[in-house]
Amino acid sequence: MDADFGMKKIAWAQAHMPLHRMLRKRLEREQPFAGHRIGVALHLEAKTAVLILTLHAGGAELFVVGSNPWSTQDEIVAALAQQEGIHVRAQRGESERERLQHVERLVDFAPTVVVEDGGDVAVALAERGSEGSSALVGICEETTTGVERLHALARDGRLWVPAVAVNDARMKHLLDNRYGTGQSSWEAIMRATNLLIAGKTVLIVGYGWCGRGLALRAAGLGARVLVVDADPVKAVEAALEGYEVVMLPEGIAKADFVVTATGRSGVLDAEMLNHAKDGVLLANAGHFGYEIDLPGLEKASESVTEVRPEVHAYTMPDGRTLFAIGRGELVNLAAGDGHPVEIMDISFALQLLAVGHVISLAGELPPGVHPYPPELDAEVARMVLAKLAGEQTG
Amino acid sequence: MDADFGMKKIAWAQAHMPLHRMLRKRLEREQPFAGHRIGVALHLEAKTAVLILTLHAGGAELFVVGSNPWSTQDEIVAALAQQEGIHVRAQRGESERERLQHVERLVDFAPTVVVEDGGDVAVALAERGSEGSSALVGICEETTTGVERLHALARDGRLWVPAVAVNDARMKHLLDNRYGTGQSSWEAIMRATNLLIAGKTVLIVGYGWCGRGLALRAAGLGARVLVVDADPVKAVEAALEGYEVVMLPEGIAKADFVVTATGRSGVLDAEMLNHAKDGVLLANAGHFGYEIDLPGLEKASESVTEVRPEVHAYTMPDGRTLFAIGRGELVNLAAGDGHPVEIMDISFALQLLAVGHVISLAGELPPGVHPYPPELDAEVARMVLAKLAGEQTG
Amino acid sequence: MDADFGMKKIAWAQAHMPLHRMLRKRLEREQPFAGHRIGVALHLEAKTAVLILTLHAGGAELFVVGSNPWSTQDEIVAALAQQEGIHVRAQRGESERERLQHVERLVDFAPTVVVEDGGDVAVALAERGSEGSSALVGICEETTTGVERLHALARDGRLWVPAVAVNDARMKHLLDNRYGTGQSSWEAIMRATNLLIAGKTVLIVGYGWCGRGLALRAAGLGARVLVVDADPVKAVEAALEGYEVVMLPEGIAKADFVVTATGRSGVLDAEMLNHAKDGVLLANAGHFGYEIDLPGLEKASESVTEVRPEVHAYTMPDGRTLFAIGRGELVNLAAGDGHPVEIMDISFALQLLAVGHVISLAGELPPGVHPYPPELDAEVARMVLAKLAGEQTG
Amino acid sequence: MDADFGMKKIAWAQAHMPLHRMLRKRLEREQPFAGHRIGVALHLEAKTAVLILTLHAGGAELFVVGSNPWSTQDEIVAALAQQEGIHVRAQRGESERERLQHVERLVDFAPTVVVEDGGDVAVALAERGSEGSSALVGICEETTTGVERLHALARDGRLWVPAVAVNDARMKHLLDNRYGTGQSSWEAIMRATNLLIAGKTVLIVGYGWCGRGLALRAAGLGARVLVVDADPVKAVEAALEGYEVVMLPEGIAKADFVVTATGRSGVLDAEMLNHAKDGVLLANAGHFGYEIDLPGLEKASESVTEVRPEVHAYTMPDGRTLFAIGRGELVNLAAGDGHPVEIMDISFALQLLAVGHVISLAGELPPGVHPYPPELDAEVARMVLAKLAGEQTG
Repeated sequence: MDADFGMKKIAWAQAHMPLHRMLRKRLEREQPFAGHRIGVALHLEAKTAVLILTLHAGGAELFVVGSNPWSTQDEIVAALAQQEGIHVRAQRGESERERLQHVERLVDFAPTVVVEDGGDVAVALAERGSEGSSALVGICEETTTGVERLHALARDGRLWVPAVAVNDARMKHLLDNRYGTGQSSWEAIMRATNLLIAGKTVLIVGYGWCGRGLALRAAGLGARVLVVDADPVKAVEAALEGYEVVMLPEGIAKADFVVTATGRSGVLDAEMLNHAKDGVLLANAGHFGYEIDLPGLEKASESVTEVRPEVHAYTMPDGRTLFAIGRGELVNLAAGDGHPVEIMDISFALQLLAVGHVISLAGELPPGVHPYPPELDAEVARMVLAKLAGEQTG
Repeated sequence: MDADFGMKKIAWAQAHMPLHRMLRKRLEREQPFAGHRIGVALHLEAKTAVLILTLHAGGAELFVVGSNPWSTQDEIVAALAQQEGIHVRAQRGESERERLQHVERLVDFAPTVVVEDGGDVAVALAERGSEGSSALVGICEETTTGVERLHALARDGRLWVPAVAVNDARMKHLLDNRYGTGQSSWEAIMRATNLLIAGKTVLIVGYGWCGRGLALRAAGLGARVLVVDADPVKAVEAALEGYEVVMLPEGIAKADFVVTATGRSGVLDAEMLNHAKDGVLLANAGHFGYEIDLPGLEKASESVTEVRPEVHAYTMPDGRTLFAIGRGELVNLAAGDGHPVEIMDISFALQLLAVGHVISLAGELPPGVHPYPPELDAEVARMVLAKLAGEQTG
Repeated sequence: MDADFGMKKIAWAQAHMPLHRMLRKRLEREQPFAGHRIGVALHLEAKTAVLILTLHAGGAELFVVGSNPWSTQDEIVAALAQQEGIHVRAQRGESERERLQHVERLVDFAPTVVVEDGGDVAVALAERGSEGSSALVGICEETTTGVERLHALARDGRLWVPAVAVNDARMKHLLDNRYGTGQSSWEAIMRATNLLIAGKTVLIVGYGWCGRGLALRAAGLGARVLVVDADPVKAVEAALEGYEVVMLPEGIAKADFVVTATGRSGVLDAEMLNHAKDGVLLANAGHFGYEIDLPGLEKASESVTEVRPEVHAYTMPDGRTLFAIGRGELVNLAAGDGHPVEIMDISFALQLLAVGHVISLAGELPPGVHPYPPELDAEVARMVLAKLAGEQTG
Repeated sequence: MDADFGMKKIAWAQAHMPLHRMLRKRLEREQPFAGHRIGVALHLEAKTAVLILTLHAGGAELFVVGSNPWSTQDEIVAALAQQEGIHVRAQRGESERERLQHVERLVDFAPTVVVEDGGDVAVALAERGSEGSSALVGICEETTTGVERLHALARDGRLWVPAVAVNDARMKHLLDNRYGTGQSSWEAIMRATNLLIAGKTVLIVGYGWCGRGLALRAAGLGARVLVVDADPVKAVEAALEGYEVVMLPEGIAKADFVVTATGRSGVLDAEMLNHAKDGVLLANAGHFGYEIDLPGLEKASESVTEVRPEVHAYTMPDGRTLFAIGRGELVNLAAGDGHPVEIMDISFALQLLAVGHVISLAGELPPGVHPYPPELDAEVARMVLAKLAGEQTG
């Protein structure tokens, strides 16, 4: 656990997170979080550490846990643990039970604000009844899944505090999937394979925001792009963008690369993959690792071997070889460094403003799930524009 | 009034409206509009005539008027007037008073369904009280403006029938502005000017659906694209697409071409145009002709002369010449042929299904403004996909 | 013959030919062409008139004929004829015999410099033996065909003067085909048809400079682009640009639009067109009108009718209809206004400098075909860059 | 030295080198290289190993050395060394003296064919006089530098054998710089930095084949692209592609990323970099590491620290930080895996055919530098097209 290496990674991220630098100056001066205890449950890598340090700079004491055992980076934990006023409980590869015990310790910390990814803390708080949330002024939730869990708690009458759906901010969902996922997924695929994209036939399965970004960047790299979407209106949009709209079996049969981004389980199962060409490369850019049924494919195969880091070859009885990149997990994280730094600068700036929002309106916001305040969304957008226009960012 | 020339134009449009050809076969067989009187108030050009003839083929008797004196084409009127069961009252350049008298005759016709663009018939019906609409089973409205007027009538308790907001269909607003306006506006600008787009600096004012289409096609023609939008989130989206986001005065000062698509009046006024370069070309792609204040510019100028068909030169006291294309009106209609045929095939197919919808549910739909039925939206999308896949269209 | 209308068209072109405006100032001051008689045989439309007037401003007396009976515009002839010192002999639709008689009168004029397109004057001079060229200091030739004829004359020992191959300038062949033909051909196709390009399958036959421009702009308008080229290396280049490389019959069978640019005769003959889809649109962007064998197609068809201006429908015995745009001639001229103004500004600026070159080196350059001087090529490029950088152009 | 790991890397490359697989089948059957001794001096990484094994499969005995001490991968050396009939002398990080000693041993091996990168073997052979080359039937040279050295030897009368300039094949220079360098350089930059490209201002210095590929891919990733080139014609081409053409100091002042590809030394020196913005990222995609004067920048800086693997921060006295990626060396090799596999499949297939060519014409080709045979160029292109068309590749 090399705290110095962690600090180096954090410094690099911070140097490319101008919104956090701008906000930090204000927070250091105004100390709006002084006296607050903030519980954080997020992917513990360098960009998240910059958010945590910025919350700290605003006067907060923090309790930090990971939101996934395999996204935690130990050097980042070590670097954060050196800071007075930041308590960290996380370790790469910890068991899910250990991780949830850390979440319980976070609840014991009696946070006044919770910033999280996935809703584990909200659920743990709900278990303890309304007293468990007595100190709390609000929850800021980053993900679709977490927002859905909050809505479920609210329907059950177990959400005692206001919660802000940061995921629904326009600056979040309009940007990170198209520009973050699009770039970082292709970067990871190129890094894992050293293969040429130009001239290849690429099948994008799912033409939502992620799929649009994946198609845009594939075309930008010179690929011929095929698109599948179950929604016929989205399919027409794809066709008018110049992509070739196909049915899934036809697309699979033509593709050199297949990237899924549907949000649905088992979209590519072993039977569908019977249509695939020898040598096809499969990757997933959707949130969950279940879109490509690799366990099913393994069963149907004669052998599976890792042929490059993060590339597995499935040898089929009919002689074909199929390659899976990043074990079917989110390819930009499994075989790369995740979203570009600037994308997280924006997403976490939305979080910072949301924290300020629930603190400044403590006691005024009713319990329940609140949409992201449009004026804060616009404020973050204006900061990005100011940066693009070359204004001094401190 | 050469009916033959009109029929020729209609035949060309029909040959490129596969959705209408598919629907027509069904309508001819099933005659779902038999016994119905349909009142139509739309732009009377070839593509609209195909819609009218398709409604007619489904068994309807029709009464047809224009929705704008200057979009009416006399040869199309002549061609339609030859058909038994189609009554037409329209003439290019008629006065607004004459046109509204035709609308009154349409109301006298006691239509059972109204298909319109802008809401004039709906308002005329409202004037006559609920008896005026006694025969009516529904209104199908194509435009934003018309839908707003219907909502106003509903709020006032003067909308006695169900009305379908065809404009809100996804297949309408997601497609016609981006792909229709984008292509046809640049085609009109190139036709009017014979100038090169590649290497030019193009300023797009407004980054809504129209603005996105205009920017996309400008880039596709090799221009360097600048974008202005008052909404900072849209401005960030434009920046991440690779466009240069600017403030309006800066953009005007750099641009060779300026195209407006904001929906707002006087966006480019004479004062703002003081920033423009000598020789700049100005065009508007927004619905109304008031985005560029040409009357104001004329006042500030020394002279105005038409230097090419649909191009006017404004000579300024400081020696600069500014060129306006298409008199500041919707440039794709003022200096071109409007939306591509296939775009109107889609939009009018939505209308055809909406007419079938209000007829089949006659008496069941409550009065008020109804959203476009998603299953019909999807049906049109599937027809487009079938056509793209090369299926036989009859 | 409306000279005023002609002057208006010329004024528009001139206003968008900044290189000519720059050069004209210098030529007016220095009068390098004073005492010279320049014979011009070019397409007589507005942009050419600007070249002619600029030569005139430099002190020359001119004798002007057309290079093709159908590219001559009578209003331009009328406008030029008003100028003292410019003799014009041309009429739209004149017979080829009449046109060649005008060329003989041009030779009688005893030009000191010839500027031409196609080599007719050079050949007429050769017929008269070396005395026919006694006054001549040089020929400046714009086209591939003309340069080939000059080389043939040189081989036969019948080229008594130096000739500059303006066609071979990099600023000519690198630009006009890609950026001129690419834009103007698609503009003409859209104008002639009012059809949507986005989502359509476009086949480009021939991937030379023209084909690259056609493919680039088709993709920029949202088409899915297929490419055919007999040269396998060019085909690989097309594939790595992301286009789909096909064999001709397969491409024809898939295409909604087919555009030829091969320079070869009968590339699309009636038999090949048996593969075409019902409703296909055919156009040619190559120099000669023989790439699509329309006479052969007509023979194989049941009827041919003009269905829109410059669009002919060929009804086939099997029920398909094939549409030809612009009669198979160069589509950007046959159904549009030819190259964008700025492209001709560049090409004719190369001519102006070539004229200055042969005059200043009169008696020094040996007879024969000379490559375009690289320093003049670079000078024109620098003028374009200066204009792009917004420098004052006078 | 893990030979198994080396074989794994080689197997991956081979699986994505279909041209080599096709050629190998033929070579194994026909054994055209039987009895030949081939000397190879190339970058010893996986793709090169596939070439070497394919030469071996054709019957040759081989002697292999590295062409650069830092491009040699020891696991590849180990894997090759296991093969009977392949002699390898190379080690990562060996001194230049050691490497040249290995070249001498290669000459001692008395090769009948030489395949190399840079001309070291050709020069060593020349040192030994004509007897040194007595067994030799030909040299196949891959690089510009090597071809230049061969021409120099020929001018001095010291090239006693035919040499084929593989570098000049169209399938080499038209493809690897645009599509290889373009993709792999941006992949390396994204990998090294985890930064967003979309919305960034990217300056490409040099608009040759490399520069075109770099600009194309930057635009495809959503960047706003600025271009500098000293050749005004190339600068005009860049402008007509829609890029912003600038002077170097202006471009440096605007850029977030600067990538050089000029082939010239010291293009970016410390003085020029005074114009750079705080936080700028610098990379080189040209062959030599001298385009960015990093030693000069270091002298002008207060400190230099490695802030991420392959990213160095230069802290300037005025407070700015400049980042250099990949130490100013070819960024796709220094911070990535070099050209995509398929690009090397093509380049090395050209080599294989060149080897066959010199062997089959042994004694017939005169000494001297020969252009690449166009029919072999076309043959490789046809193999690529066959693969793209999905033909079985064995």
